[in-house]
Amino acid sequence: MMTLSLIGIGCGDPGQLTRAAIRAINAADLVLIPRKGTTKSDLAELRRTICADVLTSKNTRIAEFDLPVRDAEEADYRKGVDDWHDAVAATWSQTIASHLASEGRVALLIWGDPSLYDSSLRIARRLDPLPKIEVVPGITSIQALCAAHALPLNDIGEPFLVTTGRRLREGGWPQDTNTVVVMLDGGTAFQSLDPNGLHIWWGAYLGMPDQIIMSGALTEVGPRIVALRQEARERHGWIMDSYILKRRP
Amino acid sequence: MMTLSLIGIGCGDPGQLTRAAIRAINAADLVLIPRKGTTKSDLAELRRTICADVLTSKNTRIAEFDLPVRDAEEADYRKGVDDWHDAVAATWSQTIASHLASEGRVALLIWGDPSLYDSSLRIARRLDPLPKIEVVPGITSIQALCAAHALPLNDIGEPFLVTTGRRLREGGWPQDTNTVVVMLDGGTAFQSLDPNGLHIWWGAYLGMPDQIIMSGALTEVGPRIVALRQEARERHGWIMDSYILKRRP
Ligand SMILES: C[S@@+](CC[C@H](N)C(=O)[O-])C[C@H]1O[C@@H](n2cnc3c(N)ncnc32)[C@H](O)[C@@H]1O
Ligand SMILES: C[S@@+](CC[C@H](N)C(=O)[O-])C[C@H]1O[C@@H](n2cnc3c(N)ncnc32)[C@H](O)[C@@H]1O
Repeated sequence: MMTLSLIGIGCGDPGQLTRAAIRAINAADLVLIPRKGTTKSDLAELRRTICADVLTSKNTRIAEFDLPVRDAEEADYRKGVDDWHDAVAATWSQTIASHLASEGRVALLIWGDPSLYDSSLRIARRLDPLPKIEVVPGITSIQALCAAHALPLNDIGEPFLVTTGRRLREGGWPQDTNTVVVMLDGGTAFQSLDPNGLHIWWGAYLGMPDQIIMSGALTEVGPRIVALRQEARERHGWIMDSYILKRRP
Repeated sequence: MMTLSLIGIGCGDPGQLTRAAIRAINAADLVLIPRKGTTKSDLAELRRTICADVLTSKNTRIAEFDLPVRDAEEADYRKGVDDWHDAVAATWSQTIASHLASEGRVALLIWGDPSLYDSSLRIARRLDPLPKIEVVPGITSIQALCAAHALPLNDIGEPFLVTTGRRLREGGWPQDTNTVVVMLDGGTAFQSLDPNGLHIWWGAYLGMPDQIIMSGALTEVGPRIVALRQEARERHGWIMDSYILKRRP
């Protein structure tokens, strides 16, 4: 029997690694590290650093592999994702098979937490034969964002919605809540909202040496975030950012 | 100048402690441990265990204090909370003053993550003089719940709402989302919903030795969770549980 551990490693700061994550990495026979092309190579590098840093077990091998690229030409988004998940599952299987016989413990280091906007759990369920799947929770970028701003996420007894840039742009301000967390925003979807009465807490490269944060009334800091984001993105070649919006009722 | 570190310690499993949390505990001159009366004494015990387990610095002192009790008679809920926050801030100040002069590092161990349904950040802002406030993120009960069920929290590219039992009971199924996380539910608020088409992932005492989880169609497992929760609560004298509901569109 094969066991596959999906291990949340936090979202940039190696200090976010938990004791359970360190234990699970060291319990693995094989650690898989995906490479995602050159632009996001800092992220593969962070995974390597973490391994080098916490791995004390002599029996754990590390295997890097190239992540298949999603077919951006595929008109049907669901089908594109579906095919890509199949392709990733096949790559995992091949990489595992080339290092282990039919049993052992395989670890995958997952950015942030494995349950939050991450495909690994869905991909793992496509493996054949199906391994035993274990999840080690990790610090999410939402936690890192709140910590950087020393911000309580929810108002007292109140709900909050976590959504994507695309959803915010398409749907506008959601019903039922005055607090919205926005992730996976390829642009600055907050620009599609009426900024009056909105407050933003924004952060990029959270937990990393280049962390940038900014907060304030959206009317005021919105344009500055747009400029800062553009500039940072050009300088690094990539950006990962998230933000929280609050509406004062 | 005083520095106050609010340190997320995870929600029951000492393995959820991060390296940054361990560092911050050891960097403190004083660790404050609140006692909340006898029923939740397991929780104070966990904080003690964590301290004993990770504290290697000889210079760190530990101070326990009794948390003031919220006035349940106060008719105005907001005012009740407000008064209670003031009372807790006063207790922190006294406990700190009896151990430290005007400067030093004080650590507060926070259940889960300091930003999620926790008052400590709001209370800290009431301290006079205002300390420098630092937050160390921690694993939340939401992450622990997803990990226990190996469940992806969001559907692909879709939002989710995090809310309380009271809100769910009063407001019914929210707009804009097919995934709802419910925390702070003193009862089983899911019983107020039409269970048809809903799926539940429930967990109590997550990460602790007595962890219980259950999942399935709400029509089927809902009544079993109600019974199980009642029974567990009587056995332990207290319960902490959370759940995720998903609606298949
Ligand atoms: C594919 S999702 C993965 C989320 C991850 N599983 C987590 O728990 O945070 C990627 C999104 O997470 C957010 N994110 C991840 N790491 C971040 C960081 N270090 N700083 C800012 N945002 C981050 C961004 O919104 C990004 O678009
Ligand atoms: C006052 S809130 C604190 C939340 C905490 N800051 C966090 O990050 O999870 C308490 C609520 O968190 C949830 N909770 C906390 N620990 C839990 C556990 N070990 N198992 C299940 N639910 C838990 C329950 O819904 C409980 O009512």
